[in-house]
Amino acid sequence: MTDKGTSDTGANSMWGGRFAAGPDAIMEAINASIGFDQRLAAQDIRGSRAHAAMLAVTGIISDTDAQAIGEGLLTVLSEIEGGAFKFRTDLEDIHMNVEARLKEIIGEPAGRLHTARSRNDQVALDFRLWVRDQTDAVIAGLELLIRAFLAQAEKGADWVMPGFTHLQTAQPVTWGHHMMAYVEMLGRDMGRFQDARTRMNESPLGAAALAGTSFPIDREMTAQELGFDRPMANSLDAVADRDFALEFLSAASICAMHLSRFAEELVIWSSAQFRFARLSDRFSTGSSIMPQKRNPDAAELLRAKLGRILGATVALFTIMKGLPLTYSKDMQEDKEQVFDAADNLILSLAAMEGMVRDLTANVPVLESAAASGFSTATDLADWLVRELGLPFRDAHHVTGTLVAMAEKKDVDLPELTLADMQSVHSGIRDDVFAVLGVHNSVRSRQSYGGTAPDQVRRQIARWKEKLA
Amino acid sequence: MTDKGTSDTGANSMWGGRFAAGPDAIMEAINASIGFDQRLAAQDIRGSRAHAAMLAVTGIISDTDAQAIGEGLLTVLSEIEGGAFKFRTDLEDIHMNVEARLKEIIGEPAGRLHTARSRNDQVALDFRLWVRDQTDAVIAGLELLIRAFLAQAEKGADWVMPGFTHLQTAQPVTWGHHMMAYVEMLGRDMGRFQDARTRMNESPLGAAALAGTSFPIDREMTAQELGFDRPMANSLDAVADRDFALEFLSAASICAMHLSRFAEELVIWSSAQFRFARLSDRFSTGSSIMPQKRNPDAAELLRAKLGRILGATVALFTIMKGLPLTYSKDMQEDKEQVFDAADNLILSLAAMEGMVRDLTANVPVLESAAASGFSTATDLADWLVRELGLPFRDAHHVTGTLVAMAEKKDVDLPELTLADMQSVHSGIRDDVFAVLGVHNSVRSRQSYGGTAPDQVRRQIARWKEKLA
Amino acid sequence: MTDKGTSDTGANSMWGGRFAAGPDAIMEAINASIGFDQRLAAQDIRGSRAHAAMLAVTGIISDTDAQAIGEGLLTVLSEIEGGAFKFRTDLEDIHMNVEARLKEIIGEPAGRLHTARSRNDQVALDFRLWVRDQTDAVIAGLELLIRAFLAQAEKGADWVMPGFTHLQTAQPVTWGHHMMAYVEMLGRDMGRFQDARTRMNESPLGAAALAGTSFPIDREMTAQELGFDRPMANSLDAVADRDFALEFLSAASICAMHLSRFAEELVIWSSAQFRFARLSDRFSTGSSIMPQKRNPDAAELLRAKLGRILGATVALFTIMKGLPLTYSKDMQEDKEQVFDAADNLILSLAAMEGMVRDLTANVPVLESAAASGFSTATDLADWLVRELGLPFRDAHHVTGTLVAMAEKKDVDLPELTLADMQSVHSGIRDDVFAVLGVHNSVRSRQSYGGTAPDQVRRQIARWKEKLA
Amino acid sequence: MTDKGTSDTGANSMWGGRFAAGPDAIMEAINASIGFDQRLAAQDIRGSRAHAAMLAVTGIISDTDAQAIGEGLLTVLSEIEGGAFKFRTDLEDIHMNVEARLKEIIGEPAGRLHTARSRNDQVALDFRLWVRDQTDAVIAGLELLIRAFLAQAEKGADWVMPGFTHLQTAQPVTWGHHMMAYVEMLGRDMGRFQDARTRMNESPLGAAALAGTSFPIDREMTAQELGFDRPMANSLDAVADRDFALEFLSAASICAMHLSRFAEELVIWSSAQFRFARLSDRFSTGSSIMPQKRNPDAAELLRAKLGRILGATVALFTIMKGLPLTYSKDMQEDKEQVFDAADNLILSLAAMEGMVRDLTANVPVLESAAASGFSTATDLADWLVRELGLPFRDAHHVTGTLVAMAEKKDVDLPELTLADMQSVHSGIRDDVFAVLGVHNSVRSRQSYGGTAPDQVRRQIARWKEKLA
Repeated sequence: MTDKGTSDTGANSMWGGRFAAGPDAIMEAINASIGFDQRLAAQDIRGSRAHAAMLAVTGIISDTDAQAIGEGLLTVLSEIEGGAFKFRTDLEDIHMNVEARLKEIIGEPAGRLHTARSRNDQVALDFRLWVRDQTDAVIAGLELLIRAFLAQAEKGADWVMPGFTHLQTAQPVTWGHHMMAYVEMLGRDMGRFQDARTRMNESPLGAAALAGTSFPIDREMTAQELGFDRPMANSLDAVADRDFALEFLSAASICAMHLSRFAEELVIWSSAQFRFARLSDRFSTGSSIMPQKRNPDAAELLRAKLGRILGATVALFTIMKGLPLTYSKDMQEDKEQVFDAADNLILSLAAMEGMVRDLTANVPVLESAAASGFSTATDLADWLVRELGLPFRDAHHVTGTLVAMAEKKDVDLPELTLADMQSVHSGIRDDVFAVLGVHNSVRSRQSYGGTAPDQVRRQIARWKEKLA
Repeated sequence: MTDKGTSDTGANSMWGGRFAAGPDAIMEAINASIGFDQRLAAQDIRGSRAHAAMLAVTGIISDTDAQAIGEGLLTVLSEIEGGAFKFRTDLEDIHMNVEARLKEIIGEPAGRLHTARSRNDQVALDFRLWVRDQTDAVIAGLELLIRAFLAQAEKGADWVMPGFTHLQTAQPVTWGHHMMAYVEMLGRDMGRFQDARTRMNESPLGAAALAGTSFPIDREMTAQELGFDRPMANSLDAVADRDFALEFLSAASICAMHLSRFAEELVIWSSAQFRFARLSDRFSTGSSIMPQKRNPDAAELLRAKLGRILGATVALFTIMKGLPLTYSKDMQEDKEQVFDAADNLILSLAAMEGMVRDLTANVPVLESAAASGFSTATDLADWLVRELGLPFRDAHHVTGTLVAMAEKKDVDLPELTLADMQSVHSGIRDDVFAVLGVHNSVRSRQSYGGTAPDQVRRQIARWKEKLA
Repeated sequence: MTDKGTSDTGANSMWGGRFAAGPDAIMEAINASIGFDQRLAAQDIRGSRAHAAMLAVTGIISDTDAQAIGEGLLTVLSEIEGGAFKFRTDLEDIHMNVEARLKEIIGEPAGRLHTARSRNDQVALDFRLWVRDQTDAVIAGLELLIRAFLAQAEKGADWVMPGFTHLQTAQPVTWGHHMMAYVEMLGRDMGRFQDARTRMNESPLGAAALAGTSFPIDREMTAQELGFDRPMANSLDAVADRDFALEFLSAASICAMHLSRFAEELVIWSSAQFRFARLSDRFSTGSSIMPQKRNPDAAELLRAKLGRILGATVALFTIMKGLPLTYSKDMQEDKEQVFDAADNLILSLAAMEGMVRDLTANVPVLESAAASGFSTATDLADWLVRELGLPFRDAHHVTGTLVAMAEKKDVDLPELTLADMQSVHSGIRDDVFAVLGVHNSVRSRQSYGGTAPDQVRRQIARWKEKLA
Repeated sequence: MTDKGTSDTGANSMWGGRFAAGPDAIMEAINASIGFDQRLAAQDIRGSRAHAAMLAVTGIISDTDAQAIGEGLLTVLSEIEGGAFKFRTDLEDIHMNVEARLKEIIGEPAGRLHTARSRNDQVALDFRLWVRDQTDAVIAGLELLIRAFLAQAEKGADWVMPGFTHLQTAQPVTWGHHMMAYVEMLGRDMGRFQDARTRMNESPLGAAALAGTSFPIDREMTAQELGFDRPMANSLDAVADRDFALEFLSAASICAMHLSRFAEELVIWSSAQFRFARLSDRFSTGSSIMPQKRNPDAAELLRAKLGRILGATVALFTIMKGLPLTYSKDMQEDKEQVFDAADNLILSLAAMEGMVRDLTANVPVLESAAASGFSTATDLADWLVRELGLPFRDAHHVTGTLVAMAEKKDVDLPELTLADMQSVHSGIRDDVFAVLGVHNSVRSRQSYGGTAPDQVRRQIARWKEKLA
């Protein structure tokens, strides 16, 4: 976001103002990154401290200088964290701001920190560390959200609700089973972020400007100190690569898509027509004169977040398209996109976790909706196939006739008499009633991964063990 | 941008911090818009003043109340513009912040401002006014940039340079002609923003919550006061519509695409291998030890801006997808996308204007590049068709033979002798040399819109008149 | 679409097959465009005929040759339309296919057709003509769809239904009003396509390779013959421009977004929980055993189409990003994106027109939903402001108390007695009941563009006149 | 792609035609998927065969029936592969087409194939198998391309070329090092596709309509038969999930971005101004009259492919946004996007492999470009730091002075005399010359991952072993 702080309450004066300021001001406005990359301060200082320590161990700088640098950097960090640090736009970016302040604090040795390093590998390192930190935060947020869904699933492992296709009732399922579907999705999300983390966990530090360096640096040492698995194997790639950001954004988009699906369900379920569930007051807003109106604001905002995160993804792909190696300034546009996507995803996970925890199912409404629309017709057809050996298509025909009969009598299938049934197919026996009715239906879906409460509980147990 | 102000130098503490804060803090973080919609302050106050004045004229509120409201709002505006205003997150958005402050200033009459109005039509109005203001700023920026290209075109109306296809020299063209190609693109951009402005220039005010109102309001009056052509004709649409933002973003993306093309040319032209042009110091950055290195940073940033603006466009389309009428909270996510795109487009136009104004063509290098590669071979072929009546394909064959001859002799086409030429086709006459050579070539392209300097000057004159 | 026709039922053999075929086959597969650009045949022939006629009038070729070319091209066209034409991949594209066949038919004069023209301006012309044709088809489709919504609006100008925000009932509105909201959106769509058509309606023909030509062509003549307003004013731009495609795609995305919103409403309205409306059998699919299940397949597909069209838009923007002037082969990737988007938009408009025409509102359910949730509370509050002069905020307080009272008594607001009302505010008079109840409510929204049936009919009349 | 086959040479007649055909034809056009999902034939049959075999083993159908089904399906497959199969649009999709034909061939037992299965899990299975097949093909293509880059790297492990930042010469690097940067990128691509494959490798078969089934099926058995690691653990998720397609598309976009970067380099390197490398005739196109013109068409097309693949990615994300569980018809729009992206990525990898194999470096031009612009100035500065102990910033100052001296004398740094050098800093010794000159420079970059030929060869060896 450019010019975040400026008031542009008068658009014309803003525009005029910019021009009055002249080309130099325009260049500064478009070029300086300190407005956003100050968020990399902790990562920058962490990386510099590791670099200085290595320079001393390898004899490239003296221990005294390294110690002065290391301590000076801690001072800078505490100034930044304490809010006392003055960021200067004329110093353009976080790296120069930190280095300049370090020089003020420790003097001449500050000039030795940049030995065998370049702004190029420094930027690549800082941003990678930041994305890795956010990846960890996302994984932590995913785990909490999974636990919230597990708690819901446990509570309602045998509450019956309609299973929809096309938003039309297809078959009865259980609340727990529905919740566990999201656990599966979020579980895959965790896997994607973990894979991304593993892949990004190589250190670019030591690539220097782009070609490596003639100083006898030890890239393994800095890599290890910074928690990386190894140094990156090609210095040009180290400086030119933004895969880690794109993979983070892609995984974030998939995760946000999952959230958008549940958010849509929450909005629909909260309608006066559905009343399947009730959001807590915290995550709804009301109306001063219509007390029954509960707007699912938070759910709607989460539904929208995919747009924002996908937008950031498209932005970075488009930016990276066709850039020749190695670093081009275009790549400075990467950070705000990832910052915004990460912030919004992490916040969305937290908000969804709160909503899921607080969510109250309207069990009687769910059950009655599940039973409507002859939702156990397929159970009847399956019984005909299984017990009477009818071919699938014939079983469907018999079932259709019985449903039509029930519809005419204005009753549900379990309310037909055995005589009714036998009038359509003489082989139908009394035990057919054991598969009709929504509770019988869900209990019967005992295939692995099916909606039977036992199956659902088995999956809950598996997940709890996995997360333990 | 969520949590723009927070330091997240420690990602874990941030995450932990958020959770410690509990669900209410999370809801506030995701729900409040005052962090960004304060940019609508001037538009909000302008709209409220028009509404209050109309309420008085139609007798819905008293003149005294209207006057108190109008003056109180001016006080609020001056507080905001002066930086004295304290924005409160607990009041959520700019509308409530302004109204609350108005109440502090003028007391009870403040409560009458919202008569016959709702937050829904108020938000729709404010954002529309803001987008309209930015549209005007973009149009102004486009005009300035067109003028900068016109100035370059005028200077170099007959400088010869290579016309590329596939980044391979195809035919000689003029610098002026190349600059005028961008004038055409930017001219279409102006048209698109003007059309968008016309289409968006209808007032949503008076739609109230969504159904209109039973108060005898005069929507024509507020529309006129706010510079709109007319009130919107359907109150549901007035509240649910974000077309104006999407059309702005689409036009912005096309414009940013144009800028990315010239930016790419500037980057390539600035390379040591091309040296076609030189960016001014202002818009380049150097190296402390390699004085000849001039990084085209600003051009690279402008090349990247399409990514950012296209990302915002995708974001808003995705957000709006499938929203039932009328207002859903998802739509609150619209503003930051448009703010960021508008800021960046306006800044990009200004930066490009500065770069174009300062740009220095390397005329000898351009001319020599234009002459290389037998770039006037098609002129020779055309001469054979035109003067000797050869069919097109035969003329190509003769030309190919002559080019091969020139290549073997290591000379350019104009350096072949008449005898050389006649050895390939006896009909070739001395006047063929009048079409060879890059200056002859460009002078001959006299078709409307062609690269001949006369044609270029004619187009420059047309544009100057158009903009006058 | 690569290899559209090939069966790749065995992925490995396909891949192996490609490799076995060797680099030349790969180059042909990636390079040839005849698989898709054959759709430009009619446009190509139309453009060539106009060009040949102009070449004769300006004396560049003979009348005899021009006549032979013109007639030969008609023969080619009838072969293509009749399905007799054999497209050859080795001739790469539609332009070479047509030209080669023309030569077979008329011999030597075919070689003169390409005089003063290049593949570059030919491609630019053909594609522009095609996009213009599709723009006309979209506008025609929009008009038909608008008429379908107008018919629905007319039928249900005073049917009452809930007006939603956040999918929560906010205020009663009319069916007609809701339908007219889409008329407004689609009307803006028409305007956008008309503006795009006007802007694209300039002829690139005569730009030749990129520099114009030295032949004395008459670009005004060909422009006029092909229905263009004028020739494009810069030959480089004529060859390099794809704005017309991007503007078409952007307008198509906005239109598809509108369709996605109504499609979402149709899906929700068709649910067993809402039952607001019934899609015809034609546009639903059923289940062999659950006769009441009516899946809104067509609505769901239309909801999805925005994805596809937005995807095409992103594709072309990304392709065009940073391309130096003039033509680069990247631009060959433009056509399939626009073909697919145009096909899908036109089909979507037709499908939506059918669905809207066939749609049956469930009037009693709509009315009862509209009345639920104290949806006329704001009417009561407005009455208190208007009739008793209460400040807005006080009126809200009184109303909230009355709603709470009604809720406790389990009645709707109109069922409270006057005594009940006066127990909360003694000034309330008997005529308050005239604003309660959903029919009174909608009748009272008489502001311009409001939901009152009179207002709705006024807008229907305005639109009918506009389209007449 | 809708209506791929129709001729729409006259847009109006097409549109009119569609309408004449009436709503039913429109519904068929929008609804039927057989036009594209016939590509799933092999996967569909493979899945059905596994299902039938399991039904027999578990005693749900007889062995005789299972055998008839299994053999009948092989017949259908051979009809499809042989081109004899007649696809029928009225049967809508590949699943119904196959089943109907099976019934014709084997009669009644065909009706038992669908026992304990639904179209929902069948579609999910087929598409997942198809994406898995393409993932394998992509991985195979990546390996071949990596080998081509390795071969180039090996050839030119010590050829010197400029290392660019901002397309400006920064430091000399080696050709081999540059090639190896792409090996690293493509290696990460392989990892991403492998991770995606692992994550998608769970079987949805047995989820039935959405709830699982009451038949005693064995999901482990079908999973194993079809090469899956396990069955999916939640039947709702099995039917509703498209993560595997989105992850494939995301990985494909990152890979296409890498290709776009090298493609851009190829285009620039092929320009007359750079002449860094020469594409083979196979992957270039020429001009009939300008023999030196070699258009890098294939490289440009590959540069564009990111647009297309990113567009498909955006399409599917937008389609999936906010879909309630489980299956909605929107999801039918997934296939064409993934088909197109997979086809284009696989073809692009093959084309790039061919181009890289055929690519000829222009070694003298590369070396001379590497030496220009005082590209070893940082080597000099590093020497001053390392050998004389100068602080980094002082070393830069001395170097800048020497570069200015060289520039004034119009020589390169190695051509300055020792006396020249000592006039600026008296401590400079004769051995400084060992670090100047591009060959010395690259040889000195011995840090891990640096550009020194030894380092490059070490990485080549590591990759060869990895791929062995």
